[in-house]
Amino acid sequence: MDNRPIGVFDSGIGGLTVLKEIVEQLPGEDVIYFGDTARIPYGTRSRETVIKYSFQCIRFLLSKDIKAIVIACNTASAMALEEAKKVFEIPILGVIEPGANAAVSATKNNKIGVIGTTGTINSEAYQRKIRRIHPNLEVIGISCPLFVPIVEEGWEDSDVANMTAEKYLQELKEHDTDTLVLGCTHYPALRYTIGKVMGDRVTLVNPAYETAQSTKILLKENGLLSEKIDGGKYEFYVSDDPEKFRRIGGNILRKEISTIQKVNIELL
Amino acid sequence: MDNRPIGVFDSGIGGLTVLKEIVEQLPGEDVIYFGDTARIPYGTRSRETVIKYSFQCIRFLLSKDIKAIVIACNTASAMALEEAKKVFEIPILGVIEPGANAAVSATKNNKIGVIGTTGTINSEAYQRKIRRIHPNLEVIGISCPLFVPIVEEGWEDSDVANMTAEKYLQELKEHDTDTLVLGCTHYPALRYTIGKVMGDRVTLVNPAYETAQSTKILLKENGLLSEKIDGGKYEFYVSDDPEKFRRIGGNILRKEISTIQKVNIELL
Repeated sequence: MDNRPIGVFDSGIGGLTVLKEIVEQLPGEDVIYFGDTARIPYGTRSRETVIKYSFQCIRFLLSKDIKAIVIACNTASAMALEEAKKVFEIPILGVIEPGANAAVSATKNNKIGVIGTTGTINSEAYQRKIRRIHPNLEVIGISCPLFVPIVEEGWEDSDVANMTAEKYLQELKEHDTDTLVLGCTHYPALRYTIGKVMGDRVTLVNPAYETAQSTKILLKENGLLSEKIDGGKYEFYVSDDPEKFRRIGGNILRKEISTIQKVNIELL
Repeated sequence: MDNRPIGVFDSGIGGLTVLKEIVEQLPGEDVIYFGDTARIPYGTRSRETVIKYSFQCIRFLLSKDIKAIVIACNTASAMALEEAKKVFEIPILGVIEPGANAAVSATKNNKIGVIGTTGTINSEAYQRKIRRIHPNLEVIGISCPLFVPIVEEGWEDSDVANMTAEKYLQELKEHDTDTLVLGCTHYPALRYTIGKVMGDRVTLVNPAYETAQSTKILLKENGLLSEKIDGGKYEFYVSDDPEKFRRIGGNILRKEISTIQKVNIELL
């Protein structure tokens, strides 16, 4: 048993969808959350830059005496997880592997689609992970850069969202994909619109949910589960002005975020 | 006469629309361009962070022995220009004042619209500047966060662009605005779609064009114009991977960008 907190980081607010699943599935765990809001989005940046930023996030979390790290950002998981595992000794988990495993389990016709930021899709992280589990699967990756600003505008159910989804998902529909990985933490908010465009037969995989499941298994296997059954405590840190994080983050978590501290992440 | 280069910076690629106007209107001037591509976009960041980033860009340009600085980013002009003028001795120009002046000259019914990023609009920089020139003008600012990713997708003339523009510009049409400032360097690419939605009677103001005009006047007044009439040389620096900059930037400038150097801006 280990009552120290889990460290979770993301390029900003989106990773709170992963925290929300951890809160629900591991209600006794304390969590330190860091959102790199000064440098969001990671999705358009080079691999080298994303690795540098991710290592700074990890060094900050390590300064808080945590027992494990969850990379709640698809881009950082895609580009920096393997490198981080080589450098840091603490157990580290990303969102890609849990999402890839769930997609392979769900598909019946062996045709999987993955949508995400340009960085996540171009890294081929989901595609490679899925093919490593099952080499004969057909995987198509589509980057959807308009989806994040659509969610941040609150336009999830608008005509613009619908038409944008039609444009981005056309190729997946033509290929008869039966499983679709929502490979960006903002995308579950578009679940209804994406589901409508893809049709009822298509299974949508939410890596946030799967990652919380995998975190539970990782902690159990390493004897790191908290003794507490509920009453987990949460601390929030960001690298830019906390106000936007407080407002949008409160909506995602469905509870008020009372204390948020600002961190000078560039010096770490 | 002064043959040293002009320094131009932007949060990324968009400021090349300002450089393009400088190349056309001041063909003898050499220019050092810095694009802070590792930390784009500035538009969603806090004032404090934008000032810090802008000062780092200015310190980098000053290391290159320049004679004047053009802030080619609307957000940085809105949030950091006044502070920068207090701290640095070199002549510095932003895009807000030239755009505001042109809008006041153009309006006939005294109703001006301004569109831009959330940071530019919330800073009220255009709105305040316009009201300072002419206190009785009605100014409405609308932030349009989807416009930048639409341009970067190359969807300028799509149904999505059209529907998004209809949604964002509805309020300006209802207020019978006769002049619209394109207050983000990416927006001139949407000029056709925005013009179609707003109608023929509305004048679109491009601050990039106006800024190059003002740069010419600033240099002339300070005896800083180059002796050369044409043959200006251009150097490019960025803070992230140069490849995306080379590709998209070449399209904006309509000429190949051969050499781009990467700078570690965070340490300046």
